Amino acid sequence: MNPTIDLLTRHRSIRKFNDEPVTTEMLHAVLEAGQAAASSSFLQGVTVIRVTDKQKRAAFKEITGGQPYVESAPVFLVFCADLSRPMRCCKAHGGTAAEGLTEQFIIATVDTALYAQNTVVAAESAGLGICYIGAVRNDPARTSELLELPRHVYPVFGLCLGWPAQDPEVKPRLPLSVMLKENTYSIDGEDTAIAAYDNVMRAYYAERTDNQKAQGWSEQMAGLLGKESRLHMREFLQSQGFLTK
Amino acid sequence: MNPTIDLLTRHRSIRKFNDEPVTTEMLHAVLEAGQAAASSSFLQGVTVIRVTDKQKRAAFKEITGGQPYVESAPVFLVFCADLSRPMRCCKAHGGTAAEGLTEQFIIATVDTALYAQNTVVAAESAGLGICYIGAVRNDPARTSELLELPRHVYPVFGLCLGWPAQDPEVKPRLPLSVMLKENTYSIDGEDTAIAAYDNVMRAYYAERTDNQKAQGWSEQMAGLLGKESRLHMREFLQSQGFLTK
Repeated sequence: MNPTIDLLTRHRSIRKFNDEPVTTEMLHAVLEAGQAAASSSFLQGVTVIRVTDKQKRAAFKEITGGQPYVESAPVFLVFCADLSRPMRCCKAHGGTAAEGLTEQFIIATVDTALYAQNTVVAAESAGLGICYIGAVRNDPARTSELLELPRHVYPVFGLCLGWPAQDPEVKPRLPLSVMLKENTYSIDGEDTAIAAYDNVMRAYYAERTDNQKAQGWSEQMAGLLGKESRLHMREFLQSQGFLTK
Repeated sequence: MNPTIDLLTRHRSIRKFNDEPVTTEMLHAVLEAGQAAASSSFLQGVTVIRVTDKQKRAAFKEITGGQPYVESAPVFLVFCADLSRPMRCCKAHGGTAAEGLTEQFIIATVDTALYAQNTVVAAESAGLGICYIGAVRNDPARTSELLELPRHVYPVFGLCLGWPAQDPEVKPRLPLSVMLKENTYSIDGEDTAIAAYDNVMRAYYAERTDNQKAQGWSEQMAGLLGKESRLHMREFLQSQGFLTK
């Protein structure tokens, strides 16, 4: 189609970076491109915290279950959904901010994801590699303590950035026919399409891992949904002033 | 920096489209680029519903408070966070899916936003204009009824797409110095930076609307946060099987 669409469809996570630093100029350029994403009601409900402190980087490696690139990547950012800033504006203008609304939580979380994805596209267009780090939510309380996050701010995910020292293949996605529907949610044909996709993914994993018994996607999902992961999130978020009504 | 970063920083919402249709080939290409975004645990927790039915389009105009482009844009999509599909996989493999976890809600919501933003970048790279429509959440129950969404699926936002028939200016964003912090969340200097940004926004609105008493950003936020918007979201989401634990 065009070079930007080609770039988007070539995305793969990078988990090995070479030692070349990412300049501040480059980092600021990709984050400013991130900011250009749409924002619901123009809330701009995001704060990005760059972690440069070595002890904190080591702590984040621990929180994320020992992922080495969280400590070693040239840049490690934590993208936070931030309602604290607009609430401070409300107070400064003599108002009282509504708190704890699920709607506000959705707005700030979506704002954060749109900002991050634009940052990712900008970074990849400059040749950088990236990896999202959802595992900062393994211990969101410790993450928040390390970054001194106030109430009404929560860490949504981390992001590693750097110059790639690996060149993994693109992972095949579900067929568009499964994800796109017209007028109504219908599951006609999904079973067959997912079974075919399972075979694609088994072959993909078998080739990469030499495991001839690799799972298909639907089996992975069964494993993923079959366990209660990060059960602490609700209590943590409520303690931070989110999702109380 | 490069043409992709230039494209990202030129983003503005488009609310007037000309009559030229968007071909199915084009729509599929931008949605496939959307799918290439990262997905947490490779959940791919998204379903996109294209609304072509005229009566449904009219109903969506009503739900969204009368926004005419929701009815008239060449393409109107509803991006849904979808845990129903992986849950069906779990059942098909003899498992029992964990339900209602806040963590699952975050994963599916973020997946949806990343998918949508990649779609938006792809669309804009092809010359299309877009507008996110958060107002499908004005009445999420009616939206879900119209689209026959099952449990464990919810409409996050809509998206209008088409060929632009207007050329609005880019809206200035908060200075990066406000949104990017290092190692800890500190508000040093924010008041001064936001006051300066308020002046930028007042001038921006004054020029566009001829309103010399236009509000700055912080006053807008005071108005936005000062009211309890979409209080129905929690109850709606819980009735759909989300956020119960």
